[in-house]
Amino acid sequence: MGEFGLIDLLRGVIQRSRQSLAQRVREHPAPQALKTLQDIIIDVGDDAAAWLVDGSVQLSTTDTLVQDVHFSFDGATWRELGWKALAVNISDIAAMGGVPTYALVTLGLPGHTPVEGVSELYEGMIEIGDKYGAAIVGGDIIGAPVVVISLTLMGLGKPGELLTRSSARVGDLVAVTGYLGSSGGGLRMLLDKMVLDVETARHLREAHLRPMPRVDEGQTLVRCGVRTAMDISDGLVADLSKLCKASGIAAKVHVSKVPVHPALKRAFPRDYLPLALGGGEDYELLFCGSSEVVERANETLETPVTIIGEIVEGSPGEVVLLDEEGRPVELKTWGWDHLR
Amino acid sequence: MGEFGLIDLLRGVIQRSRQSLAQRVREHPAPQALKTLQDIIIDVGDDAAAWLVDGSVQLSTTDTLVQDVHFSFDGATWRELGWKALAVNISDIAAMGGVPTYALVTLGLPGHTPVEGVSELYEGMIEIGDKYGAAIVGGDIIGAPVVVISLTLMGLGKPGELLTRSSARVGDLVAVTGYLGSSGGGLRMLLDKMVLDVETARHLREAHLRPMPRVDEGQTLVRCGVRTAMDISDGLVADLSKLCKASGIAAKVHVSKVPVHPALKRAFPRDYLPLALGGGEDYELLFCGSSEVVERANETLETPVTIIGEIVEGSPGEVVLLDEEGRPVELKTWGWDHLR
Repeated sequence: MGEFGLIDLLRGVIQRSRQSLAQRVREHPAPQALKTLQDIIIDVGDDAAAWLVDGSVQLSTTDTLVQDVHFSFDGATWRELGWKALAVNISDIAAMGGVPTYALVTLGLPGHTPVEGVSELYEGMIEIGDKYGAAIVGGDIIGAPVVVISLTLMGLGKPGELLTRSSARVGDLVAVTGYLGSSGGGLRMLLDKMVLDVETARHLREAHLRPMPRVDEGQTLVRCGVRTAMDISDGLVADLSKLCKASGIAAKVHVSKVPVHPALKRAFPRDYLPLALGGGEDYELLFCGSSEVVERANETLETPVTIIGEIVEGSPGEVVLLDEEGRPVELKTWGWDHLR
Repeated sequence: MGEFGLIDLLRGVIQRSRQSLAQRVREHPAPQALKTLQDIIIDVGDDAAAWLVDGSVQLSTTDTLVQDVHFSFDGATWRELGWKALAVNISDIAAMGGVPTYALVTLGLPGHTPVEGVSELYEGMIEIGDKYGAAIVGGDIIGAPVVVISLTLMGLGKPGELLTRSSARVGDLVAVTGYLGSSGGGLRMLLDKMVLDVETARHLREAHLRPMPRVDEGQTLVRCGVRTAMDISDGLVADLSKLCKASGIAAKVHVSKVPVHPALKRAFPRDYLPLALGGGEDYELLFCGSSEVVERANETLETPVTIIGEIVEGSPGEVVLLDEEGRPVELKTWGWDHLR
């Protein structure tokens, strides 16, 4: 099973769960189960699940990190790992237009794990939790053959004000917050043990290990009328393609407009573009809206906003990259392949 | 780090998270973070975390099962594993006086995992989800060196009607639903490959692999005025001790009154009592209340209810076992040690 097959399998399971429960409720009337079904707003295919509770929208997202599959201790401290594990979940809530609230944290630990490391990991989570207003309210510590960090984060949103992937329309502009590629550059720097000047190294390391999820920015986008967004975790092109697929449309991206930090250009003068287009783990917001709405967001946000393209008709999920002369180009033009 | 040290470590982290966020809010006023803090009803020390959302109580519990640490495929099917993984979480919600609503399911899978097995596991979850009105609304599938099943389950309760561990009072009766020890007996039967008559084997296997969480019973207990309960997952004596510790009191248990199913006695004529007292994974409800309240519950519930003891003054967490003549006895009298 490839990753694509796995995600399709899970989507199928979630859909089947809803259908199966609906059939059960038809056969055996159960008011609470019926309400549970009716209150679901989003289950498959977005950054977080969403359901109604009284007048609020509860958001919930989960991520599990397995040592040597999703992370290693080469170059990263326990504290940084704790920060990042919670950061990626906060980013999912931000990308739904919500604010994070409560986290459940389960750690799977091998017998020889140092207590100090575990404490540092929790400290990293508490540090970012404080910054973003999230409290750890539960979890577990269990035995496991490698370190496993399983996190579920709740959030709060408002009915009718969620940021979803499925609401992009032809003619919308495509925009992003911040700079892309620095996290991917940071990972390469750590893996290749590159020696860089202090300022460049700090920027890349922080981008990779201390991402700052865009919660306030997500709230501002909602207020400005934006309704389409996701966070960039797998890389700009891959994530924009998912958004386009969910909305049933295509997109054009002007590659020269993709925002890249000067430090990334300094460190990777040849590879900064493929890193920005596909490096991943940026945890910036990718959003769409009418030119009026995007302009309003641009004027309101202090965080840089860059318009990088537009939504067009086309094969759902297709992302066309354009060079400075407006000619379509392939990702591999920038050495995409050798990065993967 | 022993398991006790780990749980204390986690409790400390959860307390520290709340304190740290409270301090942050004092230093940097943040209305949403303050509300998040104020809405927490229960974080440490109960079957699930609980917080207010508008007029409802949201409940949330998480469990992660690691292959060869918490389960093995010896004798259990993928489907049974799926049922049980969700069942133990539903039981936590039931033990808070809530009803289950939404589940997030993350699977960690080695590369060679058969797709059919994974599908069967989900089918087992959907089957019990249908029965209890819970829908799978999210999750993930990731790579891992062994099978990891990480589940977070939400539930709904009502303000002022939660079942907690900390509300037992001296003079309360101690009661349990159903029969104890059959799950522990089922595990021994599977591990030792015991050959038993069909009916006995079916009872023990179902008790261990298809537990039926007591959601309706929990709801009835709430309506009858019960406010103290937990589910029995680690064994009657260990769990009653936790309840007593949380309530700051002690308990007496009349061992001869502990309800044991005839099939367990048939299969384990010498060991059924230690299995009932400490076998664990019963997923029955252990609850306390005045004699009036417990009697009302007993009359209202169709599920058997057995009064097994009473809450007394004493060292917080102490559980005294009494024989038929009312004399204190030690757990090891019944060969406790050789079971562990």
